[in-house]
Amino acid sequence: MELYYAEPGNIASEETEFDAFESQHILRARRKHRGDLIHFTDGIGRLYSGTIIREKPVVAVKHKLVRSSERHPAIAALAIGFIKPQRLDFLIEKATELGVNRFMLINSRFANYSSTNTDRWIKICRQAIKQSLRLFLPEIKVFDHFENFLLEHGTVDEKYIAEQSAPAGPAEVMAGISGMRNHSLLFAVGPEGGFASEEIDQARDNGFTPVNLGDFRLRTETAALVAAMIINLRS
Amino acid sequence: MELYYAEPGNIASEETEFDAFESQHILRARRKHRGDLIHFTDGIGRLYSGTIIREKPVVAVKHKLVRSSERHPAIAALAIGFIKPQRLDFLIEKATELGVNRFMLINSRFANYSSTNTDRWIKICRQAIKQSLRLFLPEIKVFDHFENFLLEHGTVDEKYIAEQSAPAGPAEVMAGISGMRNHSLLFAVGPEGGFASEEIDQARDNGFTPVNLGDFRLRTETAALVAAMIINLRS
Repeated sequence: MELYYAEPGNIASEETEFDAFESQHILRARRKHRGDLIHFTDGIGRLYSGTIIREKPVVAVKHKLVRSSERHPAIAALAIGFIKPQRLDFLIEKATELGVNRFMLINSRFANYSSTNTDRWIKICRQAIKQSLRLFLPEIKVFDHFENFLLEHGTVDEKYIAEQSAPAGPAEVMAGISGMRNHSLLFAVGPEGGFASEEIDQARDNGFTPVNLGDFRLRTETAALVAAMIINLRS
Repeated sequence: MELYYAEPGNIASEETEFDAFESQHILRARRKHRGDLIHFTDGIGRLYSGTIIREKPVVAVKHKLVRSSERHPAIAALAIGFIKPQRLDFLIEKATELGVNRFMLINSRFANYSSTNTDRWIKICRQAIKQSLRLFLPEIKVFDHFENFLLEHGTVDEKYIAEQSAPAGPAEVMAGISGMRNHSLLFAVGPEGGFASEEIDQARDNGFTPVNLGDFRLRTETAALVAAMIINLRS
């Protein structure tokens, strides 16, 4: 199945209009035409089918709701210190495919990059949920300081922070969360220079458990992928 | 620690010369000079330290062997149908960081890309072992047909092939290989179109177990990363 995305605000009672980017994709890349049946999601749990009734100026369909799902109650969050844009893009794409549903991007002390380009990451998430046939778009939030992240990270059951020298590794974390599918999880991974030791201490004071995400030295996005995989593999 | 790489052929009894790429990296990116101490590996298990004695035409050091490790007897192999070059590059980098030590790139039936640019991937592997402080460079082999891959994939203890409809998932695979740290593993993941059903059948006839690498539809490199993570997390 091919899945497309329409913003909830563009889904009226019977008709949906796609934005220019999605319209282009439907017509050019997928070679769909007036009269063709397509499937799409609103990114908040609904799957629709629709027949294309107009191609211009943007694609419009007459739609039917196929099914509606409740958002899984467990938050699966990655908090990441800023890294090179291309590496961050890739991480967001992969982690979305693997089921991460909240990204918290932190301008932490040793981060050499920063950005507030949420639109770009939302576009990447849209592509990734279409690819993996997921019906929920992840949330993305940017924090300008580590302290603000700690103040506003919300209520999660289990909170981990990556620290290379921590005694617990991925196996211990997986064993610890086994059978807790409804628990919310948050993994925080520092930028290339890692978190500062004060940041780790502050996190510990806020209930985070330090964990090392691998025996070898991993890049930020690789360590974050290990965390995403732990989220993905938990049973 | 910063780790550099020198080809075994360039390591004489007391002196080592780095190639132009590595010399550039040592001098320009890391701002090292004559007299500075650096560490490097030959990618076949040896860690050296050396003092820079020349900067031109390439960096040369007078070296000492720090330690020599035996290659882990267990092959950890990923066999991958060809995908877009940028996505393959990223996968090779991440999988090397995670401990994959053999890449088998297959021009399988539904692959839309192909390449024999082994030099490029070796360069990526070099960067990844330096990053993750590993002392062994993975092996890379290209197969022009799936049949040739089956004929020449060598002796491995456990062989898996990704198939979306297979009943066994990552949790079953992890349980199955638990405690078998010395068993060689091979995961085969098809290109974007997946493996052809004849290819899956041939693999099954050759002792491969079909496995689905996720409940949702994953891109090739994401599924292969799940396999790499299973290899990384096995205990």
